[in-house]
Amino acid sequence: MTAIKHDVVALGNAIVDVIGRCSDAFLQKHGAAKGSMRLVDAATIATLYKEMGPAVEISGGSAANTMVGVASFGGRAGFIGKVADDEFGRIFGHDIAAAGVTFATKPAKGGAPTARSLILVTPDGERTMNTFLGVSPELNHGEVDADLVKGAAIVYLEGYLFDQPAAKAAFRQAATLARQAGRKVALTLSDGFCVDRHRAEFLDLIRKEVDILFANEAEITSLYQTKVFDDAARSARADVGIAVLTRSAKGSLILSGDKAVTVTPEPVAKVVDTTGAGDLYAAGFLYGLSQGKPLDQCGRLGSIAAAEIISHIGARPEKSLAKLARDRGI
Amino acid sequence: MTAIKHDVVALGNAIVDVIGRCSDAFLQKHGAAKGSMRLVDAATIATLYKEMGPAVEISGGSAANTMVGVASFGGRAGFIGKVADDEFGRIFGHDIAAAGVTFATKPAKGGAPTARSLILVTPDGERTMNTFLGVSPELNHGEVDADLVKGAAIVYLEGYLFDQPAAKAAFRQAATLARQAGRKVALTLSDGFCVDRHRAEFLDLIRKEVDILFANEAEITSLYQTKVFDDAARSARADVGIAVLTRSAKGSLILSGDKAVTVTPEPVAKVVDTTGAGDLYAAGFLYGLSQGKPLDQCGRLGSIAAAEIISHIGARPEKSLAKLARDRGI
Repeated sequence: MTAIKHDVVALGNAIVDVIGRCSDAFLQKHGAAKGSMRLVDAATIATLYKEMGPAVEISGGSAANTMVGVASFGGRAGFIGKVADDEFGRIFGHDIAAAGVTFATKPAKGGAPTARSLILVTPDGERTMNTFLGVSPELNHGEVDADLVKGAAIVYLEGYLFDQPAAKAAFRQAATLARQAGRKVALTLSDGFCVDRHRAEFLDLIRKEVDILFANEAEITSLYQTKVFDDAARSARADVGIAVLTRSAKGSLILSGDKAVTVTPEPVAKVVDTTGAGDLYAAGFLYGLSQGKPLDQCGRLGSIAAAEIISHIGARPEKSLAKLARDRGI
Repeated sequence: MTAIKHDVVALGNAIVDVIGRCSDAFLQKHGAAKGSMRLVDAATIATLYKEMGPAVEISGGSAANTMVGVASFGGRAGFIGKVADDEFGRIFGHDIAAAGVTFATKPAKGGAPTARSLILVTPDGERTMNTFLGVSPELNHGEVDADLVKGAAIVYLEGYLFDQPAAKAAFRQAATLARQAGRKVALTLSDGFCVDRHRAEFLDLIRKEVDILFANEAEITSLYQTKVFDDAARSARADVGIAVLTRSAKGSLILSGDKAVTVTPEPVAKVVDTTGAGDLYAAGFLYGLSQGKPLDQCGRLGSIAAAEIISHIGARPEKSLAKLARDRGI
């Protein structure tokens, strides 16, 4: 029996975000669906980068952002994901370790570069992502540190990894390892289009292996192929122990057995960049759950973290989330 | 006679900033004088990077920031500076071109990497810089595009370049080219310690070649080896056509012949990061001057740009400076 050393350990893409502002017309010209994530190849990302405006580079990756958030709350977090031995890989590795997250996945030598995502932020603060996965899909069986996974109270899986056949195996292996060790498995659906590409597999995984499911409205309605949020929510409640459904400005809904908790969003003076809103909501929720807090407080912690992240550029917190929570009496 | 194609062309270090937060104790531990810039070698920058917290990468370089500011006001700006053919070099080149600045200096192949500056921001918003110059000093005679320099109404020189013997020659060459073409030469002293290292050469250059001098209190008092600001200001007025002296929260003082103009600073809700305050003040001033505006309006434009830059992380504007100026009736 492995002792618990981490509150949450995540598997996800190791990505550096390249964030810049653009107009709605720029998205249309380049065929990018606003608010979504699409995978692009090396040539496309080069063209987009050339045409986009000045940018800022900040470590990202959905589940990686979530783990940095857990650490910022004071939780013990770990991350498994693949970078290359290049400048972006060094940036990613530095930032996640400097944030206090255990990160021991070895960089790949030669081959594809570290993943990057061109994130285009429109004047309304919405982000649209164009991701070149580079070396990230090389995360496979051999990279899953079994001790790290078995020693985590919760294992958190990033839905985006489902776009990568090699990584998908690592993903299921981690879920199985966690369940065998008596741990909880959490999953985020990541993106409505991603759900659409892998619906059957997601449903199978959720019903068999997942204890805690994170999804926004677009993702959960895509999963259950309905336009009616309440119908999707009802299905999710039946399929999983805890369903955490985020609804942007409408707040979030947490369903568990016969309980339903509605969480109002934390007020934000000005939405600058929504990148990482869902990632950081998950950070607060998972941290709260790992500390045995009731569901409404878990949701409140999620809202506090999401509010911090959308008030500035980038998906890594600029303030101590532990302090923000304390200031709000949690 | 070369026609004027640019309002301002600058020579400076081509640097990517790596910006993170730190405590005052961290600066003391690493022997960094708060508010200054020091040059460090590859080993030192690696150690500092390892120990510093999470960071954000944003294109920087003092004179490069100024040129991006000039372009953001709607001015025609150009930049001459050396990067390597690496990831940071591509970031620098992309960002300055995407901001609308003419940048045609070829990247160096092989050899030292692109310059980077670890910028440590303390809780008071003050920045302390640790710069590894990498390939930047390889800017030398051959790199100065004579047509670009002669076609600029104002040539702007970054004092930091004086730390590099090879670049110093390029610097003086550009000043001579500009004067021969009947253009104006502007210089920023960049840093008090930098002035201390090169006082005699700075004074010689200022008296012989410079029309417009930018300095803050630490720099101008270091130049004239006095503790009394008013004495230093008097000396500067005698040595140069226009002396522009910035005084942080006290605003700025512009001296030209028998004219003395005091400019109050633009109000700022919260100082987040002072990186680039001087660079952007210079941008506003130079843009105004190139448009033939009176000195008080040039100073006002400088204050508007400085206020924008210190309200967020990084030394490149996030808002259109042209729009900010219009909103304020200039």
